[in-house]
Amino acid sequence: MLESWLIAPISSIISIMIGLFLFRYVSSKDSGTERMKEIAGAIQEGSRSFLKTEYKYLGVFVAIIAVLLSVFLSVKIGVTYVFGTLFSALAGIIGMEIAVRANVRTANAAKKGGLISAFSIAFRGGAVMGLMVVGLALLGISIIYWLTRDPEMLLGMSIGASTLTLFMKAGGGIFTKTADIAADLVGKVELGIPEDDPRNPAVIADNVGDNVGDCAGSGADLFDSYIAAVMAAMILGGASQLVYLETVPLVFSGLGIFSSIIGIAVVRVGKGGDPGKALNLGTYITCIIFGLLTFGAAILFGYDIKIWGATIVGLIAGIVIGITSDYFTSINRPPAVKTAEAAQTGAAISILTGFSYGLLSVFPALLGIGIGSAVAYSLYGVYGVGMSAVGMLAIAGTIIAGDAYGPIGDNAKGIAEMSDLGEEVVNITDEIDAAGNTTKAITKGFAIGAAGLTSLALLASYQEIVKSLTGQTISFDLMNPLVMMGVFIGMAIPIVFSAMIILGVSKNAYRMIEEIRRQFREIPGLMEGTGKPDYVACVNIATKGALHELMPLIVFSISTTLIVGFVAGIRALAGYLSGAIFSGFFLAILMSNAGGLWDNAKKYVESGFFGGKGSDTHKAAVIGDTVGDPFKDTAGPSLNTLVTVMAQIASLFAPLIIAYALIGL
Amino acid sequence: MLESWLIAPISSIISIMIGLFLFRYVSSKDSGTERMKEIAGAIQEGSRSFLKTEYKYLGVFVAIIAVLLSVFLSVKIGVTYVFGTLFSALAGIIGMEIAVRANVRTANAAKKGGLISAFSIAFRGGAVMGLMVVGLALLGISIIYWLTRDPEMLLGMSIGASTLTLFMKAGGGIFTKTADIAADLVGKVELGIPEDDPRNPAVIADNVGDNVGDCAGSGADLFDSYIAAVMAAMILGGASQLVYLETVPLVFSGLGIFSSIIGIAVVRVGKGGDPGKALNLGTYITCIIFGLLTFGAAILFGYDIKIWGATIVGLIAGIVIGITSDYFTSINRPPAVKTAEAAQTGAAISILTGFSYGLLSVFPALLGIGIGSAVAYSLYGVYGVGMSAVGMLAIAGTIIAGDAYGPIGDNAKGIAEMSDLGEEVVNITDEIDAAGNTTKAITKGFAIGAAGLTSLALLASYQEIVKSLTGQTISFDLMNPLVMMGVFIGMAIPIVFSAMIILGVSKNAYRMIEEIRRQFREIPGLMEGTGKPDYVACVNIATKGALHELMPLIVFSISTTLIVGFVAGIRALAGYLSGAIFSGFFLAILMSNAGGLWDNAKKYVESGFFGGKGSDTHKAAVIGDTVGDPFKDTAGPSLNTLVTVMAQIASLFAPLIIAYALIGL
Repeated sequence: MLESWLIAPISSIISIMIGLFLFRYVSSKDSGTERMKEIAGAIQEGSRSFLKTEYKYLGVFVAIIAVLLSVFLSVKIGVTYVFGTLFSALAGIIGMEIAVRANVRTANAAKKGGLISAFSIAFRGGAVMGLMVVGLALLGISIIYWLTRDPEMLLGMSIGASTLTLFMKAGGGIFTKTADIAADLVGKVELGIPEDDPRNPAVIADNVGDNVGDCAGSGADLFDSYIAAVMAAMILGGASQLVYLETVPLVFSGLGIFSSIIGIAVVRVGKGGDPGKALNLGTYITCIIFGLLTFGAAILFGYDIKIWGATIVGLIAGIVIGITSDYFTSINRPPAVKTAEAAQTGAAISILTGFSYGLLSVFPALLGIGIGSAVAYSLYGVYGVGMSAVGMLAIAGTIIAGDAYGPIGDNAKGIAEMSDLGEEVVNITDEIDAAGNTTKAITKGFAIGAAGLTSLALLASYQEIVKSLTGQTISFDLMNPLVMMGVFIGMAIPIVFSAMIILGVSKNAYRMIEEIRRQFREIPGLMEGTGKPDYVACVNIATKGALHELMPLIVFSISTTLIVGFVAGIRALAGYLSGAIFSGFFLAILMSNAGGLWDNAKKYVESGFFGGKGSDTHKAAVIGDTVGDPFKDTAGPSLNTLVTVMAQIASLFAPLIIAYALIGL
Repeated sequence: MLESWLIAPISSIISIMIGLFLFRYVSSKDSGTERMKEIAGAIQEGSRSFLKTEYKYLGVFVAIIAVLLSVFLSVKIGVTYVFGTLFSALAGIIGMEIAVRANVRTANAAKKGGLISAFSIAFRGGAVMGLMVVGLALLGISIIYWLTRDPEMLLGMSIGASTLTLFMKAGGGIFTKTADIAADLVGKVELGIPEDDPRNPAVIADNVGDNVGDCAGSGADLFDSYIAAVMAAMILGGASQLVYLETVPLVFSGLGIFSSIIGIAVVRVGKGGDPGKALNLGTYITCIIFGLLTFGAAILFGYDIKIWGATIVGLIAGIVIGITSDYFTSINRPPAVKTAEAAQTGAAISILTGFSYGLLSVFPALLGIGIGSAVAYSLYGVYGVGMSAVGMLAIAGTIIAGDAYGPIGDNAKGIAEMSDLGEEVVNITDEIDAAGNTTKAITKGFAIGAAGLTSLALLASYQEIVKSLTGQTISFDLMNPLVMMGVFIGMAIPIVFSAMIILGVSKNAYRMIEEIRRQFREIPGLMEGTGKPDYVACVNIATKGALHELMPLIVFSISTTLIVGFVAGIRALAGYLSGAIFSGFFLAILMSNAGGLWDNAKKYVESGFFGGKGSDTHKAAVIGDTVGDPFKDTAGPSLNTLVTVMAQIASLFAPLIIAYALIGL
């Protein structure tokens, strides 16, 4: 009889095949006028150039880390690490390639066939990303598990995926906000030319940023959490008495992929339909099918039904966090409306109001994670916590599809504007874009929640690894001074990381502002529209600057983790990881939601309230939006991955730390 | 032979007597022209009216709580609770009374005798506050200890002080920022009249706010931490084998008072002297004398020298946090300068820059608390942690003196401006005010650090109380799902509290803006300077609004603490308290420092850089400053007290929770 866990590789191969099919389908569509092709070509070129430069740097980084891992730990880990980075890179490339193809084709479909066709292209583009990401992730896990049958061997792959994600997410985040802020400050403020004006040399970089930060970055984020969650649950399962626990995460994830495929298939917009509702429907259907399939599997394979319960608890926690994030960021809900209203008295009160609602939005997320993990634990111990993370991430395929749809719509809108496709077409792409903003908010909440549960599972698997190495369960008592010290130091890492990455955006934006000013000064006829801006120069500045700002931060986070471990030992490191989870989770939710909130408060004013576009209220709301930009697109979403990387480094180095730490257990 | 702990009541009585002497000395000085007396009278009247209204509400609140405590716990606790509130109220009244006398006399001294006399009055005014606060605190503790010889009896008194402080600090914080924001928005922005213009009905409320929020509030803050720290160390000492450990906190605190008296005595400004340096010198001398006296006492009374070591570790941690706070907020240091520089590109980047430096400023504070508590623990266990908090707070007398000096100088400047005392006098008061800003930043860092260590000590004493009740040491293991859930929920309390209190300021400011507009509309000749504004109406709105916003928050925090305890038990409650310490400490430092930083960035621009006053850069910097106002003066400094209250409620209700919680230990 075939082993049940083979559901995982089978479903992932099917998922990849459907993804490739949709890729070809979208690519086969017409990409419109010459002008559209030209602009899309520039975005494509810029995105590829970013990815090429980033992967070049990353190649060196990965090679160094792989050698270090091989020398200090084992060659196997070095190899699986490289394997993980390659899979993650592949997911990134495919996501990027489909995004830069789907954007222009969405714009063209909006012109030719209206909302229904445009939505279909944009969402199928997103679906490619979603199906490929989960397919590749689960396929990679299956291969390693098939070869080694040892879940701990997944650590190397998982760290590989995480380090790459950190670069994609944080580097892409710096890139996109550098371009965004620089383009706005010089274009809108200094020169008075509209947003997305093709004369602005930074405008292509801005559009590239949507692809690299939002699209590829978010995909990579869930790719990383996905692998980490499945791995953590498998490690916890492997350490238990029941043999089948090790493979349940694979079975359930495989069923999650099937559910996502069905959920994605049903998403479509009929005549007069609402894109936002269609996307939500897809998510709910995925959840329901996942619940049914896993319940069936639990009965069929004779799993303890409590495992299924813990899985569903995670799924529910994810949905709760997603929905509350949606409430706090939606354009017509009280938080955004009141923030817009406060902008009437100026930027300060509006920023304070948005910040306060951002803080409030952390409350349900903390409750969701806190109660969710406790219930999961009460059902099936630490393994239950691990499975709750798996449950939350099982529907990642659909979630990523909805998320990647967003920047495709955003780009389509930009292309429609730059190619003068007319107001009607712009309005259609606008509607697509607006639905994307909502899914983006939900996805972010979901991704942070998933990462929160995953980090808890990683902490548990860290304890499990320490136990397997020392033969004893080490308690992480808060009243132990080393644990408490660890918590305080660990809390500092996401805090410092956020600070430095935001400062990095400003620094990088300054560099780019200089370049834009230089081009307007030196390129004849640029302002008049007869000269041609040098888009590539801006893309290069944003790329190199992003990596330049990021590299020291990544080295800082990894080395602090090792220093705490080797100086203060295993317990302090557990406290340290917990502290990083605490402040990281808090800041991630706060920044994502406050940023989304300010963005939509601005859009609310732009839609005609409190004076509308161009009023003083609007100017005040724009300031809030700009403050929120690096919050929601750079710092906030990078923190998940940061914490995941720290937890995995700790697990990976646990044997060496136990052997060599200055302060023992 | 006399018992050594009698040092405590003796030193505190001496401290109170010197305080009263200085009170008379300051009061005996001339308060200047009729115009000055009139303005000072209005501030005095407003401050008294605030305090009266607040104490009226508080009377009801205290009576209800006292009855509840008597019924559910014991009459003794109800009585000590009332005792604590009375002492705290007395400290608040005295602080307020001296502040409203010293301000006008400082202005007059600046006119008559220049900087040297003005500084002397302002600082002696501050010294009254400092000496009375520590004197009353230690006297209260001594009385209860003398009567009961049971440190746990101090819990009632300590909670009494804490609840009152929460009202003073948070209520005063809402009050002061309501007045500040409303006065600025209507006065400066709508009507174009200068700051501190006597035609503005809110201007007196603004000055009253300096007294109630900054002066009385900060004093109450350290009063509360002081009592809590001494109590926690005494409880931890009382639970140990060594009898003398119970009284060491009293002896060391008494010696701290002597050190403060000497430190305060040496503070003076000579010809051409620098007020800032004089204040710092006082602090350093206090520290050195405290180190020497306690070392001598340890030798003389035969205390383990490690106890002394742990005490000094706390003192050093306090100084480190104070100095780094100073660095991150000082007007001519890189953080403020770069934030000012960023204001050239508009408010958004400036806010982001200041926020980032605020985040960075949390790093040394976290290291200080984390490493400090671990070192103190390694020296003498949890008792060492308790003593480190005592050490940090021992110099509170000098710290409060320097802190209360600040708002006195600020008020003196306001009075000098409103009474047209001429540019020279205003410049002198300005110099006094500027030195006050620096000490304020240091004090805030210090107060938060002290509260952080105190909360850790309270957590330890909570464990000790649970141990004494159950006969077993309960571990608070992070891998226990209840503890972890508790951490997540506990983290939410300071977060929600901060959000609601900032929103409360905005709401209250709106009410006051309406009132100011009404007065300008309805009072004939107000704008021309012939009509008289109704200052009292503004003070009343600010007062009632503050209490109205605050009351539900206090009920929320206390009841959540009880709900977590009674539903999820002792362990969850320990996690909950830890979570509150984590997020509370983080937010308190972030908000205080970011707020101070934006304030000084604005002042840096005003001093002539990047375009100076009135430029676009200045306007951008003002936005940052306004965002920072409720951060640094309302939310940030209230969080210490909030966490202290939560920890004490938990300790107080531990017996009932152990008996009746749904989920047991």
